[in-house]
Amino acid sequence: MNSKIKVSVVGGSGYTGVELLRLLIGHPNVIIHEITSRNDAGKLVSEIYPSLRGCLPHYFVDPDKADLKKADLVFFATPNGIAMNYVTDLLENGVKVIDLAADFRIQDVAIWEKWYEMKHSAVKELKSAVYGLPELNREAIKQAQLVANPGCYPTAIQLALIPLIKSNLINTETIIADAKSGISGAGKKTETQFLMSEASENFKAYSLKGHRHLPEIEENLKSISSNNKIKLTFVPHLLPMVRGIHATLYVDCIKDFDPSVIFNDFYKDELFVDVMESGSCPETKSVRGSNVCRLSFYKIPETNRLVILSVIDNLVKGAAGQALQNMNIMMGWPESAGLDLIPLYP
Amino acid sequence: MNSKIKVSVVGGSGYTGVELLRLLIGHPNVIIHEITSRNDAGKLVSEIYPSLRGCLPHYFVDPDKADLKKADLVFFATPNGIAMNYVTDLLENGVKVIDLAADFRIQDVAIWEKWYEMKHSAVKELKSAVYGLPELNREAIKQAQLVANPGCYPTAIQLALIPLIKSNLINTETIIADAKSGISGAGKKTETQFLMSEASENFKAYSLKGHRHLPEIEENLKSISSNNKIKLTFVPHLLPMVRGIHATLYVDCIKDFDPSVIFNDFYKDELFVDVMESGSCPETKSVRGSNVCRLSFYKIPETNRLVILSVIDNLVKGAAGQALQNMNIMMGWPESAGLDLIPLYP
Amino acid sequence: MNSKIKVSVVGGSGYTGVELLRLLIGHPNVIIHEITSRNDAGKLVSEIYPSLRGCLPHYFVDPDKADLKKADLVFFATPNGIAMNYVTDLLENGVKVIDLAADFRIQDVAIWEKWYEMKHSAVKELKSAVYGLPELNREAIKQAQLVANPGCYPTAIQLALIPLIKSNLINTETIIADAKSGISGAGKKTETQFLMSEASENFKAYSLKGHRHLPEIEENLKSISSNNKIKLTFVPHLLPMVRGIHATLYVDCIKDFDPSVIFNDFYKDELFVDVMESGSCPETKSVRGSNVCRLSFYKIPETNRLVILSVIDNLVKGAAGQALQNMNIMMGWPESAGLDLIPLYP
Amino acid sequence: MNSKIKVSVVGGSGYTGVELLRLLIGHPNVIIHEITSRNDAGKLVSEIYPSLRGCLPHYFVDPDKADLKKADLVFFATPNGIAMNYVTDLLENGVKVIDLAADFRIQDVAIWEKWYEMKHSAVKELKSAVYGLPELNREAIKQAQLVANPGCYPTAIQLALIPLIKSNLINTETIIADAKSGISGAGKKTETQFLMSEASENFKAYSLKGHRHLPEIEENLKSISSNNKIKLTFVPHLLPMVRGIHATLYVDCIKDFDPSVIFNDFYKDELFVDVMESGSCPETKSVRGSNVCRLSFYKIPETNRLVILSVIDNLVKGAAGQALQNMNIMMGWPESAGLDLIPLYP
Repeated sequence: MNSKIKVSVVGGSGYTGVELLRLLIGHPNVIIHEITSRNDAGKLVSEIYPSLRGCLPHYFVDPDKADLKKADLVFFATPNGIAMNYVTDLLENGVKVIDLAADFRIQDVAIWEKWYEMKHSAVKELKSAVYGLPELNREAIKQAQLVANPGCYPTAIQLALIPLIKSNLINTETIIADAKSGISGAGKKTETQFLMSEASENFKAYSLKGHRHLPEIEENLKSISSNNKIKLTFVPHLLPMVRGIHATLYVDCIKDFDPSVIFNDFYKDELFVDVMESGSCPETKSVRGSNVCRLSFYKIPETNRLVILSVIDNLVKGAAGQALQNMNIMMGWPESAGLDLIPLYP
Repeated sequence: MNSKIKVSVVGGSGYTGVELLRLLIGHPNVIIHEITSRNDAGKLVSEIYPSLRGCLPHYFVDPDKADLKKADLVFFATPNGIAMNYVTDLLENGVKVIDLAADFRIQDVAIWEKWYEMKHSAVKELKSAVYGLPELNREAIKQAQLVANPGCYPTAIQLALIPLIKSNLINTETIIADAKSGISGAGKKTETQFLMSEASENFKAYSLKGHRHLPEIEENLKSISSNNKIKLTFVPHLLPMVRGIHATLYVDCIKDFDPSVIFNDFYKDELFVDVMESGSCPETKSVRGSNVCRLSFYKIPETNRLVILSVIDNLVKGAAGQALQNMNIMMGWPESAGLDLIPLYP
Repeated sequence: MNSKIKVSVVGGSGYTGVELLRLLIGHPNVIIHEITSRNDAGKLVSEIYPSLRGCLPHYFVDPDKADLKKADLVFFATPNGIAMNYVTDLLENGVKVIDLAADFRIQDVAIWEKWYEMKHSAVKELKSAVYGLPELNREAIKQAQLVANPGCYPTAIQLALIPLIKSNLINTETIIADAKSGISGAGKKTETQFLMSEASENFKAYSLKGHRHLPEIEENLKSISSNNKIKLTFVPHLLPMVRGIHATLYVDCIKDFDPSVIFNDFYKDELFVDVMESGSCPETKSVRGSNVCRLSFYKIPETNRLVILSVIDNLVKGAAGQALQNMNIMMGWPESAGLDLIPLYP
Repeated sequence: MNSKIKVSVVGGSGYTGVELLRLLIGHPNVIIHEITSRNDAGKLVSEIYPSLRGCLPHYFVDPDKADLKKADLVFFATPNGIAMNYVTDLLENGVKVIDLAADFRIQDVAIWEKWYEMKHSAVKELKSAVYGLPELNREAIKQAQLVANPGCYPTAIQLALIPLIKSNLINTETIIADAKSGISGAGKKTETQFLMSEASENFKAYSLKGHRHLPEIEENLKSISSNNKIKLTFVPHLLPMVRGIHATLYVDCIKDFDPSVIFNDFYKDELFVDVMESGSCPETKSVRGSNVCRLSFYKIPETNRLVILSVIDNLVKGAAGQALQNMNIMMGWPESAGLDLIPLYP
């Protein structure tokens, strides 16, 4: 018999937070202890999210009044720059931490501070943080007390590239990632551009001059590349839909190889990566609500160019689902616990 | 320890079918035996529905080659007029049947034949069929071998009316149901009007001169009304979205009463009906993917008019979820088995 | 040869404003003088609305710095409660005014102040204002210096009711208006509920306890009803799309009549009301971008209940288009000037 | 005073057809003569497209009964392989022809027959056809009797590349075009994948192994490249929206240059190409309903890679609008006649 652990969620009122709650409610080994929200403190969680009526009796707690140390594990589903102010105390008290924001995703403090435009307040803890991409770092995650859950774009993009880079099969300095995200990736921010009147029946690129997920991807992929060099052209686009990321990657092969063999071999034991056959086109709807990343690829005839297509649900494998997967690994539970989610179709 | 039963799905390639499969895969007491599809026979189910890749190894079987009698229970997710040709044989062989189409929803054969424009081929079995609205007919469903799963509109509309009619509180001859459905209610029919180019950024009424769900509702409500009279003005509309029904009901009260007391009292033990407070507005997204019906109401001041709002996911409580609920009741299992579904939000 | 007039737009940065600009650019008798915006003052209009790049060289002017009296006619596309502070001065200077907000829509000041929760600051001008529904008040509009442009819901609803009420054919105290609006009706407000993540794939009623368009409709319809009594149950709903209103009206007939004759007769000379045949279902997409209201109706057999369906584009016939129509009437121009807009389909 | 010409539309019942009708109705020099449709012959055009009620009295004519030679100019908005069977007769009779399908887009007959999987039946006429991209071929279009209107993707992609290739600034063998199209690009085809239930809240690549627009682009760009070599990796994707194409192009620069100078210089006299400033992100909604192509670009720092972004409305600049532009050029009319369309926003 498994005993249960107490889990708290800091920042439970955003979309990553509510998705985390959806998944935690269904997790067999978890008791949800506290859910914090600065803005909605004192309100029933199910008042803000009526989808949870009847599933969750909790009230939002003010983060300053929460007793996070009472939890065995704390998820931060907060804006960037929050978790770093809490971790020292939590780690010292033996609490495990999974940060779904960016505070611990980049080891190079200078680069982090440049892109996130603030001072990092937990550099020591950062050094001990493990980048929580299970398909890459499972062993380290098992031992970690602090896990940096990857960004949504980085998850979709890196799962498409890691097998190729690890095997030294592509030119790592000419990679292109043309990525498209559903609007829930922007969170619950009330900006004009995210209004339905603006965003529906519309499509555009954004952050053309640089997106914060770029340095995260580059640093992480560098660590597995043979020559320690990564140059990525990354153009994110905003899709007129809610959930889903589709990354279309263009790489130049430097060897002759069968991508089907490479991908199937690399991911053969992975529960949450589905390698499709060459030339097929994964659709975002086929993973909506689930923790799966579906991949396919196609070698352009008479060239050395390989196209890789990768889809995830940005709120699941790109956020809350991956966070549960990391928790399962950290706790030694079956990796799929609470994650046997079947996509909602249509 | 629960033993498992063998379940087959006839007509598994439509949207009701795939939703049934999503739910059956997660049901603890069920082994999926055969899944039939005339058009897709021989193909992997997960080839037609990539969302099921990795969850379901089955191939579609031609219904003429299926051995339905081997199952303990058969779901029909077929067009109207199919199930009635199979049931005699199945019932005689002790197989339980749940029809998600309309073949057994109306007891008056003449009315059924008028609206469905075909001859009914299983009149004897029709007489034994139970209308599978658990909140109304739970005891009869327990004993039934053949259950007629209600239509999607009838579910949303009747759950809003039954407590009022049973208590003889409203004029049953002036009811208005202004109902709005997501486009998945039309199934996978490849008609021009259901193309995304036509249906998105668009809204219209349809079937203004009469919708087949009208006689189903009228017959059923008549049976619980004190004077055996029901007159319903029912106008369905097509929403530019996929899942969800919202019914707005307008009724004339004939007594003074507190609707909050009536609804809360009637549904106090129901797992899948959530009565909200007076004046609140349930949203379809709050039930998307779940088996819940959320209800609220508002008495227009200085009139005897009551407005009731009712939302369901047309493919879950309006089809596949309710079918599982009926199966659970027929089998004596916990009514929520396989149905602890948390809505996908956002 | 027509000479041109100078027109200014106060509050040009909202959706009603930009739609007004789209139409004014194409109007043959108009020179756009000033466009004000408090928030975007100093910016190019086409920077805020790139759709207007190359069509409009204007910069937004701060309303406090604008010289509105220099215009021959001023449109107010502002929030409620703004225009009333400007009209005295403008009217005294001979400037014509069309207010697209609610300041002059209701003659009963007490009711206006109750619903809009502020003191009315231009009661004298209010008395001279004409309610700008051309199909009802064309002659008065011709003489008016101040026109109150009707709300979007009131336009769709009243055009469906006026012919019936004027002919004293229906019970005016049991009317139901079940209305559905695209989200652009909410304007450019950055509230959570209007985010694409919330509003798409979602449908709900709102303002169940009372919507500000109700007293506007009731006062106006009262003035044409034989017994001066109107009781309307009005339930607005939010559609997961951008443009379009669909009103479904339920009325009780008190005489025997052919609605087709009534509607066709009443609207036979109207350019912007299209009466369809009985039982047909107008769709919002068929009027998107145009100034047309399409109407149809259906008498429920064996009852005295008549259903009327009415669709408009909330930003055109429900706002900016109707404002141009009013300007054309006030100026003695052809009523269709600048309004020969063909709907965008699909 | 301009006299008017008689124009007929073959294949008027598809989305390109109805868009052509919308624009032709507003064109000052055109009388619409016949509109053909095999499926809808005998029906009012406005019965099939209620958006045209009151704007167009025409009935669809069976193409076999149409007297196309009576027109001065005939548009073919038909499936591929139709126009080629009509042109010989029309051209001999002095009728001008604009084909919006692919029959005359590729001069290399062998390549055309391979990609379109049929025999070309008008090879002689093909040789005289002019590829109707005005920004490239304006002089030839002036003289042409037969114009091949470009495909939608080729328009968006080529307008982004032509200035660079003509000036010999980029490697023409490593071009990547990651293109995304609204679903109206698929026409009115009733295939499952274009149903709203499938396509909304979904995104995928398609035709990964080769799209018919690829050889059209390659042949045409070859003709302007210095070394007669073009190698394009073209990946089209399907957007969950109706109108709009967004092409994201990745090219390798072979010289040092300022793209802003190149693009502004090349398009300085063009009415329908709007060059935005470096780093800005054009959105499809900003061109919806209009004939404009908006372009921007961004040079990735410390690389020789240039990203170009290009948006059009696939049904206007990508089809019907460009066809009108070609007609205007062929007839010697102002190029913007009938095309002063302001995008519908929001």
